[in-house]
Amino acid sequence: MSKVDKYYKEYCEHALKIQELDSSISLLRWDQETHMPKDGATFRANQLGMLSGLKYDWKTADRYGDLLKSLYESRAELKPEQKFNVEKSFQNFNKTKKYTKDFVVRESKLVSEAYRAWIEARSEKKYQLFSNSLKSILDLRREETEILGYADKPYDALLNEYEEGMTTAKLDVVFTDVKNKLNPFLKEIANKPKPENAFMYGNFPFQKQWDFGLELIKQCGFNFDKGRQDLSVHPFSSSMNPSDVRITTRVDETNFYFMLWSCLHECGHGLYEQGLREEFFGLPMGKSVSLGIHESQSRLYENNLGRSSEFWSHNYPKLQSLFKDSFGGVSQDDFYKAINRVEPSPIRTEADELTYHLHIMIRYEIEKKLIHGELDSKDLSEVWNEMYKQYLNIDIKNDNEGVLQDIHWSHGSFGYFPTYSLGSFFAAQFYAHAKEELPEFDKNIKTGNLIPLLEWLNKNVHRHGQRYQADELCERITGKPLDFDYFMQYAKEKFSSIYNL
Amino acid sequence: MSKVDKYYKEYCEHALKIQELDSSISLLRWDQETHMPKDGATFRANQLGMLSGLKYDWKTADRYGDLLKSLYESRAELKPEQKFNVEKSFQNFNKTKKYTKDFVVRESKLVSEAYRAWIEARSEKKYQLFSNSLKSILDLRREETEILGYADKPYDALLNEYEEGMTTAKLDVVFTDVKNKLNPFLKEIANKPKPENAFMYGNFPFQKQWDFGLELIKQCGFNFDKGRQDLSVHPFSSSMNPSDVRITTRVDETNFYFMLWSCLHECGHGLYEQGLREEFFGLPMGKSVSLGIHESQSRLYENNLGRSSEFWSHNYPKLQSLFKDSFGGVSQDDFYKAINRVEPSPIRTEADELTYHLHIMIRYEIEKKLIHGELDSKDLSEVWNEMYKQYLNIDIKNDNEGVLQDIHWSHGSFGYFPTYSLGSFFAAQFYAHAKEELPEFDKNIKTGNLIPLLEWLNKNVHRHGQRYQADELCERITGKPLDFDYFMQYAKEKFSSIYNL
Repeated sequence: MSKVDKYYKEYCEHALKIQELDSSISLLRWDQETHMPKDGATFRANQLGMLSGLKYDWKTADRYGDLLKSLYESRAELKPEQKFNVEKSFQNFNKTKKYTKDFVVRESKLVSEAYRAWIEARSEKKYQLFSNSLKSILDLRREETEILGYADKPYDALLNEYEEGMTTAKLDVVFTDVKNKLNPFLKEIANKPKPENAFMYGNFPFQKQWDFGLELIKQCGFNFDKGRQDLSVHPFSSSMNPSDVRITTRVDETNFYFMLWSCLHECGHGLYEQGLREEFFGLPMGKSVSLGIHESQSRLYENNLGRSSEFWSHNYPKLQSLFKDSFGGVSQDDFYKAINRVEPSPIRTEADELTYHLHIMIRYEIEKKLIHGELDSKDLSEVWNEMYKQYLNIDIKNDNEGVLQDIHWSHGSFGYFPTYSLGSFFAAQFYAHAKEELPEFDKNIKTGNLIPLLEWLNKNVHRHGQRYQADELCERITGKPLDFDYFMQYAKEKFSSIYNL
Repeated sequence: MSKVDKYYKEYCEHALKIQELDSSISLLRWDQETHMPKDGATFRANQLGMLSGLKYDWKTADRYGDLLKSLYESRAELKPEQKFNVEKSFQNFNKTKKYTKDFVVRESKLVSEAYRAWIEARSEKKYQLFSNSLKSILDLRREETEILGYADKPYDALLNEYEEGMTTAKLDVVFTDVKNKLNPFLKEIANKPKPENAFMYGNFPFQKQWDFGLELIKQCGFNFDKGRQDLSVHPFSSSMNPSDVRITTRVDETNFYFMLWSCLHECGHGLYEQGLREEFFGLPMGKSVSLGIHESQSRLYENNLGRSSEFWSHNYPKLQSLFKDSFGGVSQDDFYKAINRVEPSPIRTEADELTYHLHIMIRYEIEKKLIHGELDSKDLSEVWNEMYKQYLNIDIKNDNEGVLQDIHWSHGSFGYFPTYSLGSFFAAQFYAHAKEELPEFDKNIKTGNLIPLLEWLNKNVHRHGQRYQADELCERITGKPLDFDYFMQYAKEKFSSIYNL
């Protein structure tokens, strides 16, 4: 065995060890949200703290750094996939090393405090109780932008953490499109009568919903030998490895929307994780590429597929027969219109497919200003409420349905929100291409054959891991980088017909 | 802070870290048996291997050894509970250090092979396919007896691993009693007609059994804020910490026995774990003392309590109303007799409360001979079958219902089986004393008030952790060391009445 081969092997072993530890952390977190008894919380938090510290140590171990440096210098001798793994891992190692232990400890402490303050503020419905903590988090994040470095704007450094290569300049283009193209279209829709959707609220027994959800997920191709679904208050997906992917859903017996959308959404995330290549487990070639691409998979299943008339051609008769009281007298077309009802609302997670992006645009504008020091955290609540009035024509009644609604900032996450919109826009572009490339696309969906779509995503998105950055991946698949017009075209075609525009 | 205090603090921190890692391993194992998707098995096995190796490294870390040595030498300055923790941890450290890495790796390899061979042998119902692997395991265990050392017999070294202080000499006394006292009594019983128990087989819907089991466990005082119950093929209990204790049960819709006994049995284990003191989490004062004492708790709940007429005074009416078809026409007394039916059978795990100990006695005699080289592993199947004929008057039909029935030897466990009988005998001794010491004992059980019993066990057994070795603990509680006559007296009183002897 050559020296390079020997080093590469040792590098893979260390990376695998980090991954196995990380998967243990994932399982402990999954268990915390799904099964852990109430009083286990304190021990679990300490346990997770210990394991996370260990992970940091392993990720920054000197020997690991030496290996990566050696391999990086000899990368000409490696095969292309090996070379990519080494380059990416070396880049990650160097980035992790930029953070001092002091920074990591302070971050962990500030985030814990901020989360507590957010909980407290929510219990009083008063943003001001959270404002000081948010200020400390913002100071920390600004410090981080300097640690990480950036070419243009400080906020770019944070965006890059969730969506590599993403910049304020690029996002400004995207959200200008949202403002100039989507917003006028939403005004047109607002002038039309809204479809009836009262039948989505009623009596939907737990077990019947659960079983129906499982059936949909199976139809999508989620492999239950390599994954499972559980209940949790906030739906999420979590992967131990491509053969053990866990998704969760939420069931409300009076509101059919919750189970339906969370099942399909998390299923999309889960399919991505199941589609990663096991032979690269623990290496960059075996990891998902970005939050935006991950979200493209969930939104594709939730929206492009799950809110399409083709999908319900196959599934509505079954749904009708399951919940006769609610849907017995509702035509498939009326059901389709109901699940596509557009209506501005104060809560992001309950927003429809279109107004959703105004919620994100508002957060994006606010985050930029906060990070760039153009907005003081103490004024945040007023600014939030003004923007909701301006863009969604909504009067925010209190901070809980306003600026305190999302957990992200209390977790210290800045730069995360935009990936939600990017996900939808990537999804529209991918879906349009799948439709073009796959024979009998609509017919397959109408007959419940969703496997060709999954295979297409496996081949074009999942199996590449981090090999191509999001934009490059998008270009390989569709011939051009992210283009908002795909989403706009999808929206116009679908909603013009629903709203008779 | 004095040097000793500083060292003690660092020792506690390291011990806690080991414990937190160990609890992570426990959760991964629990998940493996209860929730993990099928295809996750290979990754999980590797992950567990990595974490177990890490645990070994931490348990044998030089710095940890240095701390323990220093503290041990200064132990006069420590408080009694601290002193005990240090002594015990130092003893464990020195023991773990006796094993070379080579031994540990060979053991892990041999056990994996033996387990595979056992699975293979069971699929063919042929012990000979397992015989060679068992021989290798036995060689390894004999090597281990020399590593660990022993005063009298090699087998003592193995017994000591599961039940500290236990020796062949002591067990010979116990099992001679089983032979000379229990066996003749069983012969008397065998001459009497057996109680009817056909109604225990029938149609018992899953959910009703599950709910009834939960009700019994709650009655026993299992705290569901600090624990939970799940399903698994082989029931077990597992503790992450005293505030997160998991038990599992098995439900067979055609056989009511399985759910009932596994619920109560595992509940007893779980109550012990919930009763350990949190302030000593990770330290010897916060750990269960031995397998025999652990088993005494499970058997006390399963047998002494769970097969008593007092327990069913309270619970039978409910049971009857739940399963009218099966129990509607069965009197409480007939039910009580059915669950106490004595009948030799080939399978240990399905044995009644009395013949069970003949199963263990046979395994004990065989293990001694195997370890001491008085029995060749290739002759094991014949010897097994002869002993079953001699002691239980049973003709073993094939190796699966004979020598291949238990997983223990394929896991490399020798010295484990005797703790099952010790558990029952400790339980009888403890239960007799609880009955004497607690006012209105029977009346409380007849009215479903099981909390005084739990509090008595908490105070007398659980909260001491490893502070007293099993025999010492037994003496503190009952005034004398383990005495088989308690079990014999319990058996005679109960079964003489059931069988009109």
